[in-house]
Amino acid sequence: MKVGRRESFNAAHRLFKPEWSDEKNLAVFGKCSNPNYHGHNYVLETWVEGPIDPETGFVIDLKELKSIIREEISDKFDHRNLNLDVAEFKERIPTAENIAVVAWNLLRARLPQHLHLKVRLWETENNIVEYEG
Amino acid sequence: MKVGRRESFNAAHRLFKPEWSDEKNLAVFGKCSNPNYHGHNYVLETWVEGPIDPETGFVIDLKELKSIIREEISDKFDHRNLNLDVAEFKERIPTAENIAVVAWNLLRARLPQHLHLKVRLWETENNIVEYEG
Amino acid sequence: MKVGRRESFNAAHRLFKPEWSDEKNLAVFGKCSNPNYHGHNYVLETWVEGPIDPETGFVIDLKELKSIIREEISDKFDHRNLNLDVAEFKERIPTAENIAVVAWNLLRARLPQHLHLKVRLWETENNIVEYEG
Amino acid sequence: MKVGRRESFNAAHRLFKPEWSDEKNLAVFGKCSNPNYHGHNYVLETWVEGPIDPETGFVIDLKELKSIIREEISDKFDHRNLNLDVAEFKERIPTAENIAVVAWNLLRARLPQHLHLKVRLWETENNIVEYEG
Amino acid sequence: MKVGRRESFNAAHRLFKPEWSDEKNLAVFGKCSNPNYHGHNYVLETWVEGPIDPETGFVIDLKELKSIIREEISDKFDHRNLNLDVAEFKERIPTAENIAVVAWNLLRARLPQHLHLKVRLWETENNIVEYEG
Amino acid sequence: MKVGRRESFNAAHRLFKPEWSDEKNLAVFGKCSNPNYHGHNYVLETWVEGPIDPETGFVIDLKELKSIIREEISDKFDHRNLNLDVAEFKERIPTAENIAVVAWNLLRARLPQHLHLKVRLWETENNIVEYEG
Repeated sequence: MKVGRRESFNAAHRLFKPEWSDEKNLAVFGKCSNPNYHGHNYVLETWVEGPIDPETGFVIDLKELKSIIREEISDKFDHRNLNLDVAEFKERIPTAENIAVVAWNLLRARLPQHLHLKVRLWETENNIVEYEG
Repeated sequence: MKVGRRESFNAAHRLFKPEWSDEKNLAVFGKCSNPNYHGHNYVLETWVEGPIDPETGFVIDLKELKSIIREEISDKFDHRNLNLDVAEFKERIPTAENIAVVAWNLLRARLPQHLHLKVRLWETENNIVEYEG
Repeated sequence: MKVGRRESFNAAHRLFKPEWSDEKNLAVFGKCSNPNYHGHNYVLETWVEGPIDPETGFVIDLKELKSIIREEISDKFDHRNLNLDVAEFKERIPTAENIAVVAWNLLRARLPQHLHLKVRLWETENNIVEYEG
Repeated sequence: MKVGRRESFNAAHRLFKPEWSDEKNLAVFGKCSNPNYHGHNYVLETWVEGPIDPETGFVIDLKELKSIIREEISDKFDHRNLNLDVAEFKERIPTAENIAVVAWNLLRARLPQHLHLKVRLWETENNIVEYEG
Repeated sequence: MKVGRRESFNAAHRLFKPEWSDEKNLAVFGKCSNPNYHGHNYVLETWVEGPIDPETGFVIDLKELKSIIREEISDKFDHRNLNLDVAEFKERIPTAENIAVVAWNLLRARLPQHLHLKVRLWETENNIVEYEG
Repeated sequence: MKVGRRESFNAAHRLFKPEWSDEKNLAVFGKCSNPNYHGHNYVLETWVEGPIDPETGFVIDLKELKSIIREEISDKFDHRNLNLDVAEFKERIPTAENIAVVAWNLLRARLPQHLHLKVRLWETENNIVEYEG
């Protein structure tokens, strides 16, 4: 049984590699490398897989999962600049792929080991990534 | 090849365990345990996996799948109180997880054995479960 | 300038007129009159119209509008049975139209008089009502 | 007859009034005043009202309307920082309301006078503004 | 009070004016003039405005409105070629604007005179028209 | 890591097997066999799975994936009649399943071998297919 919870956060970011020239950044990342940043309404779907608890009928209490997502993701990423305000992206380009990896790591540390974790992240309506460790 | 069909049903429910006190029900299930019920527009995605029939180009005729879903799910769950009107939930708490299990069992019994079945159920825009037996 | 805020609430209801026989209720309201209730994920869009405050660039602070909606609507309707738990529907059938009127009245009383108010309510993806007093 | 066209742009912004202290900015604008910006996937619906041209069956050729929107809005706002990169917001706080006014002005200047113009802007799924001059 | 109902139909069409050359059709209508047709999942929102009936709490019974839409619109347009199969488009180009006018006329003839009628038609996610007579 | 890109195309089609009588076509395919075609707004989600490139933080540059999808899918299918205008359906019924197979084959040929490919196709909001070779 898998259980999914959808939460969103609104953040600024920029795709930029400091060891490259501005020209190379522009050639590789296009308008995503704009020096003054741009932003997105990110949507994160967190999927947890495990057995149904016969006591409660839940795999995990979604109220609890929501609290964990808010503490680990929303409180750190929402209304922030991912490049400047989030420690995990000091040395990692905040592509959708890397944001998914960071989100997965933060959530994995908070969930019981017997539950499998997958995250799906929408950067826009048309660009999506999925990661399960 | 997988084929999915989306159908919805509107139902009342309540999360409540009769062997627990009202206090414990409230502590575990929160406002979902409200004695007078609340409700949802549930969306059920039914996914069937199998080979394409070379005669028709179909895995399964979606008109037929839709009829099965309407008979097994909509006719039983739509505009009903899951706790009071649906036999399967007399002794099973109608959490999203348990509704998915019941829906899967009802649909499994009606589909040819060589087709694999998965169901995905949205309780709200943000709460989703997935079950494949 | 108009400003809209979308909030949702999940509630049970039943269309039923006590002075009519069960047969007449069934004839007029169909499966919506099911005695044990059914339910919906209602979505309410609250639209406020007025001039932009030159100080803030806001018509109304959406954080404040959100608080008013939560106090007047979510706290009263969410995870409730509209017929049994909400005083306004003791003598009024909770059709989508009447829910919109009640929501409009509750919100109107909390907003400054110079702001025009309109509400739009989705009962399902396909059934919508709109009311502006 | 009204014709609407939906386009999106992804931008960073910050709500901040330079003549106020940081404390006052935080008190009024909350987390939207974060100094390093945050961002959104803005969706702009452009509505044009006028008679149907009996020659073409169009109010306006949507291919042409799309070009105007891309030149006036997408090319100026998409993948930009509204505060730093867009001249119109040098002295105007980029609230959703003000973005709608600026977009309306830019589009109005490009459309024939006999066509009425309205814009609707989604900042998030839940926050919307509408402006018609 | 306004009440809206959303229904969809899937149809083929082509924008083409027989008195024009193929070159002119291509110049004006672009790829929409492809001789072998293309198609859309059209979504029609039908809005009816009037007083709430104090007996039922309805402006109009949505079950009845749905039947009218199915008879007048779905039965005539769904899984059809608008140019070839629908009499109303024999001499009228099936632009979204003209489809809205035809739908409005068909529905207007079936509704009580005291109810105001408006239709909104999505040709794609991004192209929308609205007509109220 | 999986990366998905959503693109749409609008096309006419008809489900029809030339070696069957019109009666049999109608019996099997129902209104989908209408001789004059009907149409859909198809939505194609293309999913590519592989390692993150440590240089760029990308599995695949989505700008590049988008170009491939436009060349292989949109340029061939959009605003076309699948039965008449697309070579791959001369001898293959354009069911959603077969469109997914054809799209997968076209995209597979253009992607590096170490990347796994899956496609998901929406024919309508309610009918979906998924194929991964």
